[in-house]
This record gives sequence, structure tokens and C-alpha cells, in this order.
Amino acid sequence: MEKLRQHIEQITPLTDEEFTHIQTFFAIKRVRKNQFLLHEGDEVKHEFLVLQGVYKVFYVDNEGKEHIVQFAQENWWMTDYSGYFKKKPANMFVECLEDGEVLCLTLYGREKLSADLHKMEHFFRVKLTNGYVALQERIRILLSGNPQQRYEEFSKLHPDLLQRVPKKLIAAFLGVSRETLSRLSGSK
Amino acid sequence: MEKLRQHIEQITPLTDEEFTHIQTFFAIKRVRKNQFLLHEGDEVKHEFLVLQGVYKVFYVDNEGKEHIVQFAQENWWMTDYSGYFKKKPANMFVECLEDGEVLCLTLYGREKLSADLHKMEHFFRVKLTNGYVALQERIRILLSGNPQQRYEEFSKLHPDLLQRVPKKLIAAFLGVSRETLSRLSGSK
Repeated sequence: MEKLRQHIEQITPLTDEEFTHIQTFFAIKRVRKNQFLLHEGDEVKHEFLVLQGVYKVFYVDNEGKEHIVQFAQENWWMTDYSGYFKKKPANMFVECLEDGEVLCLTLYGREKLSADLHKMEHFFRVKLTNGYVALQERIRILLSGNPQQRYEEFSKLHPDLLQRVPKKLIAAFLGVSRETLSRLSGSK
Repeated sequence: MEKLRQHIEQITPLTDEEFTHIQTFFAIKRVRKNQFLLHEGDEVKHEFLVLQGVYKVFYVDNEGKEHIVQFAQENWWMTDYSGYFKKKPANMFVECLEDGEVLCLTLYGREKLSADLHKMEHFFRVKLTNGYVALQERIRILLSGNPQQRYEEFSKLHPDLLQRVPKKLIAAFLGVSRETLSRLSGSK
């Protein structure tokens, strides 16, 4: 749980007493490569804080095609947020791409922590702010039709993910073909 | 300012004293059709709460093509959030599509209100949560390549915007051609 404390304290300092209270709301879960944390149609019980590993959040359209909404790695939060916040069945899947470890937090826990501690309400607001900005940037990149720009922006923002995630998944995330991506990244 | 109070009290009740403090951070601005609240390159001084009117938030790519990131109408918040939160020059424009009125809030004001009042931190967190979910849904719609699905999802979510916003702008927002949109909406 020390990683959780470090993660929160990047935003706001905590007393030992506060952290003792906070950690009671989190549960550790170990996951294997190719294991699913969430399936379409499931109740979205948790959001996940990645302690270790890399994950993809995706959905499958009516034609059976997979669309990647988000990748996540250490210190990122992820889930099907629409289902989580609106208490509806998941539209998305969350799959683990490497062996790893996550912390699980229920919506009840999130809301209770926010109500109990102004600091935690602040923490979640800051994390949401960063997430909101990242999604707005993602929309900007998706709308600009140029595959090269999309690839360059992604490389700039996430050089680490380029190393960890298979190229075909990055191509799916950027909405470009595998061949286009190979050409842009200068490798096969 | 009564509209502001109603807007906040949809999330959290306020005392008169609290609201007196809150409203000192907001300034009213009247805007005309086709007036810009923000230009690319500007310092992003404010986010805006729409009291009246309909607005578009957009950017222009290297080829001079316009991409619409967001529409906004009454009770919606808008700005170039990347510029606003990161204190960087705007990448986007905000333009008014009808005569209207907005409330302006600085980042200093937003942070100060959140620090002063746990209730306001809660208010902004809830608004960000809704905004985050809306953007995640928008990405899902953008990624699914089918223009008909995009149009249907937009119609379901925003029947009011279909009436208020010119079709060519809705086509730009959905990333489909004007002709496709006319066919889908059954009118010219």
C-alpha cells in the first residue's frame, strides 16, 4: 500500500491516521497476462489503479471490430467510467497485457472517501482534471485525419508505451492500419 | 447570479453566506453571435459557464481545416481546458453561435473556491466526472466508423442541439460529410 500513499501524496500530503483510513477502501488484486478485469455486460464494481503492468480498455462494435479507448500503466486509473459512475453494465472490456497488480476501489469507497476527507475530494478532482485534459487531447488527435501527426503526438506523450505495447494495438488505438504504423515508426 | 446558484445547488446545497462568497469569483459577460471568447494563441484566462446561447469549441489543423471538439449550451462549461489547466496558450477557439451570456471563472478562482469550500471541491469533481464520461463516450462514437451510429448517438444525447446548430457544424463535429448527414437526418 506504500505505492498508494506515494501516489496520493504527489497531490496532497497525508497524516498516518488519514492514510490508515484511506487504505481500508482499497483491495489488491494480482492479474495474469491476458486476464480480464472487466467484461462487456458485467456490473462495473471497481475502478483500478495500476500498481504494475500494462492494460487495455476497449470495446467491440456491432461488426465485431475492437476499438481501444485507453491504455493504462503504472499509476494510471482505469475502468469503464460510464458504467462505473452511472451504475450501468459495462460496454467495455479491461484486459491485462502483462502480469501485473492493481488496486480496486468501489464507487461507494470513492464517494465515501471524498465526503470524509476534503483532501481526497481534492485528489480525485485533480486526477479527473488530468484525465479530462488527456481525453480532450485524444479527441483532438483523433479528429485530425493525418496518421503521421497522430503517431507523432502519441510518441511524444507516451514513449514508454511504444516499447511495451504490441504495434497492432497501437495502430488500433490511433485508428490507423498496421502497415501505416510500421511505415511511420520505421520498423516492421 | 441566481442561475449560478441553481446550477451549483443541483449538486450541493449552499448557505446564503457561502453563495455570497462564491459569486465574487464569477464575472458576467454578454456575447454576440459570431463573437469569439477565445482565439488560438491567447492566454486561457477563463473557463465559461453558459447562461444563454450556444457555442462551439474548435481548432484549426495545419491544413486550415476546422475540427469541432465540443458544442456548449445553457449550464455547460467550456474552454480550452488543456491551455486553462496547464497555463499554456490556447490551441482552440471558442465562438458564440447565438447572442448569449456566460459567466467567467479564472483558474485561481476555481482553485481558491475548491480550497475554501469542500462543497465546491465536490461540485467541481462531480462536473468533471460528468465531463469525463461524456468525452469517453465521444471517443467511443468517434472510433466506431459508422456515420449512422454516430448520428443516432448524437441525436439521442442532444436532440436540442440538432435544432439549434447548423447541419454543417454537426457534420464537422461527427466527422461525416454534409451530404451523409443530410441523408441520415432525412432533410436537406
